[in-house]
Order: sequence, then structure tokens, then C-alpha cells
Amino acid sequence: MNLAILTSGGDAPGMNAAIRALVRSGLAKNHSLWGIPRGFEGLLRGSPTPLLAASVANILMTGGTMLRTSRFVEFQQEAVRLQAVQSLNQWGMNGLVVLGGNGSLAGAYELSQAGVPVIGIPASIDNDIAETDYSIGFDTAVNNIVASIDKIRDTASAHERIFVVQVMGNHSGNLAIAAGLACGAEAIIIPECLTDYDIIEERLRHTYARGKRHSFIIVAEGAGDAQTVAQEIAGRTGHEAKWVVLGHTQRGGPPTARDRIMAALFANTALQLLDQGQQGLMVAAQAETMNAVPLKDAVAGHKTAPMHWKSLAEILAR
Amino acid sequence: MNLAILTSGGDAPGMNAAIRALVRSGLAKNHSLWGIPRGFEGLLRGSPTPLLAASVANILMTGGTMLRTSRFVEFQQEAVRLQAVQSLNQWGMNGLVVLGGNGSLAGAYELSQAGVPVIGIPASIDNDIAETDYSIGFDTAVNNIVASIDKIRDTASAHERIFVVQVMGNHSGNLAIAAGLACGAEAIIIPECLTDYDIIEERLRHTYARGKRHSFIIVAEGAGDAQTVAQEIAGRTGHEAKWVVLGHTQRGGPPTARDRIMAALFANTALQLLDQGQQGLMVAAQAETMNAVPLKDAVAGHKTAPMHWKSLAEILAR
Amino acid sequence: MNLAILTSGGDAPGMNAAIRALVRSGLAKNHSLWGIPRGFEGLLRGSPTPLLAASVANILMTGGTMLRTSRFVEFQQEAVRLQAVQSLNQWGMNGLVVLGGNGSLAGAYELSQAGVPVIGIPASIDNDIAETDYSIGFDTAVNNIVASIDKIRDTASAHERIFVVQVMGNHSGNLAIAAGLACGAEAIIIPECLTDYDIIEERLRHTYARGKRHSFIIVAEGAGDAQTVAQEIAGRTGHEAKWVVLGHTQRGGPPTARDRIMAALFANTALQLLDQGQQGLMVAAQAETMNAVPLKDAVAGHKTAPMHWKSLAEILAR
Amino acid sequence: MNLAILTSGGDAPGMNAAIRALVRSGLAKNHSLWGIPRGFEGLLRGSPTPLLAASVANILMTGGTMLRTSRFVEFQQEAVRLQAVQSLNQWGMNGLVVLGGNGSLAGAYELSQAGVPVIGIPASIDNDIAETDYSIGFDTAVNNIVASIDKIRDTASAHERIFVVQVMGNHSGNLAIAAGLACGAEAIIIPECLTDYDIIEERLRHTYARGKRHSFIIVAEGAGDAQTVAQEIAGRTGHEAKWVVLGHTQRGGPPTARDRIMAALFANTALQLLDQGQQGLMVAAQAETMNAVPLKDAVAGHKTAPMHWKSLAEILAR
Repeated sequence: MNLAILTSGGDAPGMNAAIRALVRSGLAKNHSLWGIPRGFEGLLRGSPTPLLAASVANILMTGGTMLRTSRFVEFQQEAVRLQAVQSLNQWGMNGLVVLGGNGSLAGAYELSQAGVPVIGIPASIDNDIAETDYSIGFDTAVNNIVASIDKIRDTASAHERIFVVQVMGNHSGNLAIAAGLACGAEAIIIPECLTDYDIIEERLRHTYARGKRHSFIIVAEGAGDAQTVAQEIAGRTGHEAKWVVLGHTQRGGPPTARDRIMAALFANTALQLLDQGQQGLMVAAQAETMNAVPLKDAVAGHKTAPMHWKSLAEILAR
Repeated sequence: MNLAILTSGGDAPGMNAAIRALVRSGLAKNHSLWGIPRGFEGLLRGSPTPLLAASVANILMTGGTMLRTSRFVEFQQEAVRLQAVQSLNQWGMNGLVVLGGNGSLAGAYELSQAGVPVIGIPASIDNDIAETDYSIGFDTAVNNIVASIDKIRDTASAHERIFVVQVMGNHSGNLAIAAGLACGAEAIIIPECLTDYDIIEERLRHTYARGKRHSFIIVAEGAGDAQTVAQEIAGRTGHEAKWVVLGHTQRGGPPTARDRIMAALFANTALQLLDQGQQGLMVAAQAETMNAVPLKDAVAGHKTAPMHWKSLAEILAR
Repeated sequence: MNLAILTSGGDAPGMNAAIRALVRSGLAKNHSLWGIPRGFEGLLRGSPTPLLAASVANILMTGGTMLRTSRFVEFQQEAVRLQAVQSLNQWGMNGLVVLGGNGSLAGAYELSQAGVPVIGIPASIDNDIAETDYSIGFDTAVNNIVASIDKIRDTASAHERIFVVQVMGNHSGNLAIAAGLACGAEAIIIPECLTDYDIIEERLRHTYARGKRHSFIIVAEGAGDAQTVAQEIAGRTGHEAKWVVLGHTQRGGPPTARDRIMAALFANTALQLLDQGQQGLMVAAQAETMNAVPLKDAVAGHKTAPMHWKSLAEILAR
Repeated sequence: MNLAILTSGGDAPGMNAAIRALVRSGLAKNHSLWGIPRGFEGLLRGSPTPLLAASVANILMTGGTMLRTSRFVEFQQEAVRLQAVQSLNQWGMNGLVVLGGNGSLAGAYELSQAGVPVIGIPASIDNDIAETDYSIGFDTAVNNIVASIDKIRDTASAHERIFVVQVMGNHSGNLAIAAGLACGAEAIIIPECLTDYDIIEERLRHTYARGKRHSFIIVAEGAGDAQTVAQEIAGRTGHEAKWVVLGHTQRGGPPTARDRIMAALFANTALQLLDQGQQGLMVAAQAETMNAVPLKDAVAGHKTAPMHWKSLAEILAR
């Protein structure tokens, strides 16, 4: 079979590991693998490149995506998608694997509705895709955030300051909660729930009273900006509050072991599904097992954040 | 309640995060927390230290264990264990949390048989404890190995050499397999199965034929030593094969986000169990949920390594 | 002798290594060492803590400063400084070592003018202190920046974007230039010279024309903000330009080997000078040798940035 | 001019940064750049590859060498070297830049004696090349060692053990001394001087007596092996002594900022020398300035290790 691969939307560390695994697994099953450049846009304005075993050498340990990626809003138009279907037919593709987050999987679902045999692989540092416990890139992003906060802690402690750290997550507090639990944050501010500044103020006063002289507040970008939060906190506590926006340092770098391993498992399952003639599915990690779920269900909602981790983090920082 | 905590056997990154979580969760429930120094040995030759909120400040992000640890073989004698029980009674302890691997949990089980209300938490970089999907320290150790191999790869590639890398794992190939899958190793040699050098030789010849000029073989220490394997490989292929023993660099350093988070979840569950008056149990991560299993079952066997990851790694390296 | 140590102004990685070296070297010479908390402020509102060999255990590898630090503007008033002199006399101090940047060394100079036997040690991630080739903390900060940019590069490359990265340096382009040379930046914008956007535009067009699809521009905070630069660049080139402000992630984390070693050498020389009865001096690294220069000269100006490194960086990025 | 570049002997992080800088600087001066594969061996058995601006993209941040390298003992024979001269003439090369350590620079010197216009660049993690303060790769290697020891420290401290860590350095204690000073080692064992175990024993007893429960001894491979040293120490002190051989983890990974910057400066100076028609020289870093020295002098001896750093390290660990 001729199998096409594309990566779409925000890049996620581990995408390259998944591409490598798709290619090498596919070759082992005697398929031909093809890379589509720049996501869905490449279906209209690009052309497929053959991917051999050596094409994916030395990418396992790199962030980003060798196929490049883009956010391609035109793909929401049916006419544009039909052109994409035509391209795939013209190139003689028998299947397509799409790696990306919610928006990209929605595009994948639309293609599958238009008759393309598509399998989706969840790849998003936000880890907010429904029906799967895990999306490629999350573990690396959390560890990147943790490493940054571990550095900021030195200054926070030396200057006895409060730091407000803004992390990614427009609609999801997943990154903020995981990082907050891993870093001992005093408070975690996320889009999923209202922020009660009285409680945060009480908590900071409590830790200050027991002698702690520096504190961390993590805010997901969808729930407010770090500067505003810092001003609110400084105003209430009378202590200096600094703010940092971690930005694109969260998204890159060598993928963690977990992201490389999950990428291999997702990719391997994707190929098994294509081999079985299945389509319109997303590979999903569920309770430490690789399953397949309808793309339709995966794009119908969002995974909710682990609110009990948030409560636990806040207890542990007291 | 007076609750004692001890860490035993080989140190694992995340033990400190678990101690912090036990102390802070326990204080939130109005318990008194006590640290026993140097594992089971401390029950005989040490004395408990009170652990306050501030006692566990700034340890979340450190490897090792602030309570220190030891391998205490005398604890296999019943007389010695009875003395330990006496100490705990004398100190007025109402519960004990033991963090460690197979041997330490066996000690914990014996104490529970002797009437001590014990809860175990699996902590072992080998991740070979039965009944739990995860043991604290594994994720950090795998990432340490991966980071080392990513460095060695530069030299392997520059000199076009085969490298045999020896990792920890006396009875278990868990670390070797996870690292091998994450690093693209050509072969993984583990104690759980016989090594067929003919197959490894064929695989190296194959990748060499397709132009790859460097290769990695991971060997778990229980399955042979790197030097012997390197000599065997060099003899068969005619290519230079170097060897590295990673040793104690695998075990330390700041715990990963995953190890810090899992440590918090394990600790939190341990306290819930003690609060419910339960004992003789180990907290177990099962299908992404925190459960409790009898210590008896946890120490009755070993978790088997994911052999399908090994096969997958070897396919992906072709 | 009774010797007091304080760290002042912005924290710099390696300050702890220097404190450790001052204490251990001082003890070897039979001095008594004392730590003043929170910089110059501690001379008025704090009290000295005895520093023993064990007091400085396990700090060599940590960022920040165990003595804590502050920016204490009142110290510019003579009355405040006289109070500080009184404190030191009252405590029976025979010497004072001040670690910090330009402002802190100016304070040290004033104290020496008021009769206190002071030795300064240059510690500033900006590395802009006159008369010394090196200030503690610079190497770690540059490596922190480089590590962040290496991560951002994955996304820059995957999305084929220009990134503008804002680094520290209010008056000095030292960090920006070193990071830009180490990271292959297309342009470096610093407070020491005017920015010619026509040249930058030409350079980006040139690299784009030879096929390079991502670019980096480093801007020192004193020369503009990243967002404005990104908008200018995007407007001129028609390509997407993202921006990141690295902020306090630059300043923390374990000091590099170089910062630990330089800290030891600076501290050792400071003690030799005090032993010789010298004062009013700053230890200076000059042409790989440790010398002493009058504090007066050190605070009279700023070290200029290596402009030929900037030119070289820009040639190498073509 | 046609300029050839080769890397020879052990790979050093920063070689790629130097290759990039040679190519990009050379192109800016309208030269043609050529890469010789696998060191001197490539002069006989390889052929030059044209190096364009894009050929050296994305290598700045990687260890190893894109030109690959080898240890080629036949090059000590005059006949072999004459063949190499013939190749260079045949290919129309007007100059050659050799990056490597003592052995490689000796080869470069012989080629220059045979009439080839050669410039050498010191690249060796051992930093033991005469006439230059710095050789490319040293800073990265030291930081790699420091990062490993920082990890081992967690276990050393948790188990209260002595660790003997073996680092590279067959003839030179440079790495051992720098790492020992940066890590707070109790003793540093190097090939340049005899080891007095009585003194080491006394020092360990001293630190043990003041309450320190873990210690580090660094041994350069040329001065003994870690296992033997550990046995000696354990026998004398009665404490457990573990040993680790860091091996090839020291040599790889992304070069530090310093190695990337020094590589650019060395390369830039090499090109200036070739442009001026000079040859038979090595670029040398001397007192923070780039100079040129005769290759003859550079290969006539070895740089001595900073013995006062060793003494200082041992004082600071007390």
C-alpha cells in the first residue's frame, strides 16, 4: 500500500519519533511510505516525498517535525478538502496517517467522511484530546516547564519573591496542573474553573507564616495573563510578585523517553489498523493499552483536566 | 496518629517527592509524621525525627532520599524484626510507610505479619515490582539512560562504531527495553530471554548494508557485561565495538515530572489507606488508577518486562 | 579575623560556589566566617550567622544565594551606610566580602571609603563590570539562553518561522552577543548601537533565498522589546515572526563548571588579599589570571561588549 | 582558493561549530570549501565534498563531527603522507585546516613540512595541547562530567558512600582537576603526580569526622582505574567505596556556549591566516586573545595541568 503521513497544527516533541516508527514499521510490512509537507496545506500545494528507512535516521531524538507543519484554516472549507481528496487519489495513496491535536484530527475526520482511509494519532502538548489518556508531546512539555521553574526557583528563593509563571493551555489546564503538582506550586489557575483570589491569598499568607519566603503560581494562558495575576497577588499580599511567560521554550527540545515510546506504540497500532483495512479511527491510549476509537468521538469534545491533582498540589504546598 | 516513614534499599528519584507528599498530606489530616533514618536499620539503631512542613521544603526536585537508606540484610532474621516492632511500639507509632523495591517491600510484609500497620509504596528504578504498573524512579532512570546514549551517539556516529551500553537491571529487562525503544537500539539483551547472536549479527549487517554506520546494543547488567558482548559483536562483524557501563549515573538527578507526580499520588493514597485503618497493603498503579493490593501478592513475584516493546524496538531500528 | 560575606543585587549562579569557597578557604586560614542576610539591607536589619564548613555543604551545585539578596536603594544615603559601618564594628568584623554587580560594588566602594576593609567579587550575569574579563554567573546564563533557543529552534524549523528572543541586558549586549554567536542568530540587537532594520531585512532575505526557512533575532532588553521587533520584522519581510521573552529562566539553575571554578578562584584571591591586609579592591580576572583592581576603577565605568563577536555571528548566519 | 577541512582523532564537541564557521567565513571571502571524510584517512581513501552554506546548517548545536573522524596510524609513515600530499595537489586544494588533538596536529605539522599550506585548530576534550590556553571540546566535557557527578551525588548522599569516578585523560589531569574543583571532590588523582594515599585517607577521615557522610575521588584514566582506587580506599577507611567509569558519555552532546564561541573564533582566525598566505601554524587562544603559533611548537610538548586548582579543590572539600 501507499501510505501518506502528515503532521498538522502546533508541533509536538515526539512527532518525529512517530514518523520514524510509521516508516520503519510500514517498510517491515512492505508498504511504501510518503511524507506530505506542511500538514493539510501540503495536500494542495505540496507533493509527497518517498520516505525510506534512511530518511528517518537520526530524528528519533529531535523535537519539531521533519515534515514541517502549518495551521491551515482554509481546510475548514469543503471545496478545499475535496481538492485534498483529489490529490491523494491522484498520487495513488491507499491510506493517510494524520498526527496532530483537536483541530487537525477534526480535519482528519472530515477527510475520512470524504472517503479517505485515515487513521489519526493524537499529538498535542496540551493533552486535551478526548478518548485518549495521552497525546504525544505532553510529557516533554511538562518536563520543559518543570526544568524552567526549577531554575526560576533559585531566584525566587534568593530574593524571597512570589513568581507567577504562565504556561500553554488555551482551553485546557492539563499542562498547568501537571506542572503545578510537579513543582510544588501554591496555586494553579486554569480555564476550567473560576479563580478565587481570596483562597490564594489565604494560602500564601499561611505558607509565609510558616516561614516559606517564596511561592509559585502557575497560570494557563487561557485563564489569564501572568502580569495581571502578579499585580493582583502583589496588591493583596504586599509582597513582590514577578511574572514569566514560558512561551515557545515549552514545546521543543529532545522528546522524553515516554514521548518516544508512546510515539512508537501509537504508530505501530496505526499501521496495524491500516493493515486490517480499518479507517476513520484515532489510536487511543486507554488504561495503558493501545485501542482504536472513532475519530468522530475523539473530536466531539475535550478531555477534562485532573481536578483532583490540582487539589492535591494545593494541599502539598501548604 | 503517629506515622513513621522509611526509605529502604537502592535510592530512587522521587522518593523525596513522596516523603514530602506523605508529610504534607499527613499534616493536613492532623497526623504527626516521623522520619526513620537509613531504612530498616534505623528501626534498631536510629531514632525517629519529627517531620514538619518545613522539614520537607526544597526536596521535591532532588534525587536520593533525605531519610537516607541502606541495604540491611540482618532484617531477614526474625529476631531482628521483632526488635524493630518493639522500637515502633515504644515510640508510639500507629503506622509505618515503607518506600522501596522488592526486598524492602518483603521486609514491610514481614513487619505487617508481626502486627505493624504497614503500607508499602513501590519505589525502584527497575520497575519490576509485581501488581503495579509503575514504581517510583523508573521514568527518571530511563530518561537518564536516554540522555547518556544521546551523547554517546555523537561519538558513535563520528567514528562509525558499534556501542554496547550496559544499564541496570539484575533480574529485569525493563530499563533496557524502555531505553532501547526510546533510543533506537539495534538489539536489547535482557535476563528474561536467551540471546541469539546470529540474529543480532544479521540485524547489524542489514543496517550496515543500508548505509547506517553506527549501532547501539543495550545490555541489562543481569544478562551479561558490556565488554564481553562488545567482543562477541566485534568478532562476528569485523567492526569496532566499544562499550560503556552507565553505572550510578542512571539513578540520580532531579526526578522527572512523572516521578514527582506519581510520588504524590502514591503518597496520597497511602495516607488514605492508613486513615481507613487498612494495612498490609501496597499502593499500586493499575491502568492509570491508584489501587491497593496485599503486600503478600506484591512480593510473591516480579512484573514481567514488555517483550513486545523489545520486538518493536528491533523492527524500528532496521 | 572575623570576616563577613554578603551577596547583593540580582542573584547570579555561582554565588553559592563562591560563598562555599570563601568559607572553606577562610577556615583553612583560621578565620571566622559570618554570613550577612539579604545584602546590604542585612547590615542594618539583620544579624550575622556563623558559617562553618558544614554550613556550606551541598550548595556548590545550586543557583541563587544561600545568604539571600536584595536591591536596597536606601544604601545610596550616607546616613544609612554609616549605620552599616557601625553594625560591622559592633559585630567585631575585620573584613567584608561583597559579591554582586555594578550597583553592589559601588556600595562596596562607599563602605571602603568609610573605612571598612572591603574586597569585592564581580558577580553578574550581564558580565558588564569594568576591569574584569569575567563576572560570576555569565557562563551559566549564556548556556541557559542557548538551551532555550535550541528548544525554540525545533518549532521555528517545523513552522518555518522567524523568532525574536529577548534576553537580559539593560545596559549591556554581552549576553545577547554571546548567545547570538553560540546559536547562529541572524541578527543581534543591543543597547550599545543603533539598529539598522534595512540590514537585518536584507540578511533575512538572503538566508531565505538560499533556502533557510527559520531565523533567530536576539534582542537585549535594554535595546527594545521582542514584540515590537517581531512586528517590525514581520511587516518588512512578510513572514510570520514570533517572540519569546526568556525572563528569569536565564538566571537560575545549577552553575556551569566554569562558574563554579571561577567562583573558587575569585574567592581564594579575595581571601589572600584580606590576609595581606589589602582592601578597597575588587578581584579581577584578566587574561586568565586573578588580579586585584581598585574598586574605584571597577565602578567608574562598564565593560564594553565584544562588537567583533557580533559581526562574526552575523557573517556566520548567512 | 580551494580550502579543505578535516577532523581527526577523537571527536570533540564544537568541531561541527568550527566546520560551520570555516565554511561560512570562507564563503564570505569567496573561497570554495571542501570536506575531507574520516580525517587523514580520507586524503587517501576518500574524496572531497563541496561544503556550501546549507551543508553546515543545523550542525552548530551538535556534538561529534559531520566530516567523521578516525585514528589513522599509517599516517606516521612518510610514504603514506606523500600520497596525501599528492591527493591534495590533484584536487587543486590551496590550503588545509586540520582540527584535532596532539596526534592530529603532529600529522598536520608533517603535512606542512611536506609543503601543504596547513593551519591547525586545537580540538581535544583533554585540553592538553601546548601553546594554547584552550582546545575545543574541553568545556563541554567538563560540564558533562559535572552533570554526571551531580547525579551520582544523590546516591552517594542517600547511601553515605564514597564514590570513585574515572574520567578521561590518558596523559593529562586537566579534565580531572577541573571536574574535581567544580564538584567539590575530596581528592583528584592524575598522571602528572604520584598519589599519596595516606593524605587522601587523612582527608576522608577529617571530613567524616566533621559529619560529612559521602565523598568523591576523581581519577584520570591515565593515573589508575577507578575499581582499584575504590578498593584501596575502602580497605583504608573501612567505608564502602563504589566506582563509576564515565567513559564515552563525557565526549558527546550539544557543545556548550563556550565551545561554540571558541570554535567560531578559532575558525575565523584560521581563515584570516590562510588569507594572509600564512601556514604551518596553529591558532592558539592566549590570555583571551587569538594568536598564531608554529605547529612545530604546539606539537613539541604538552600543556601542564593547573596544579594550584588541584590544591585549591582539596582545601575546599575539607
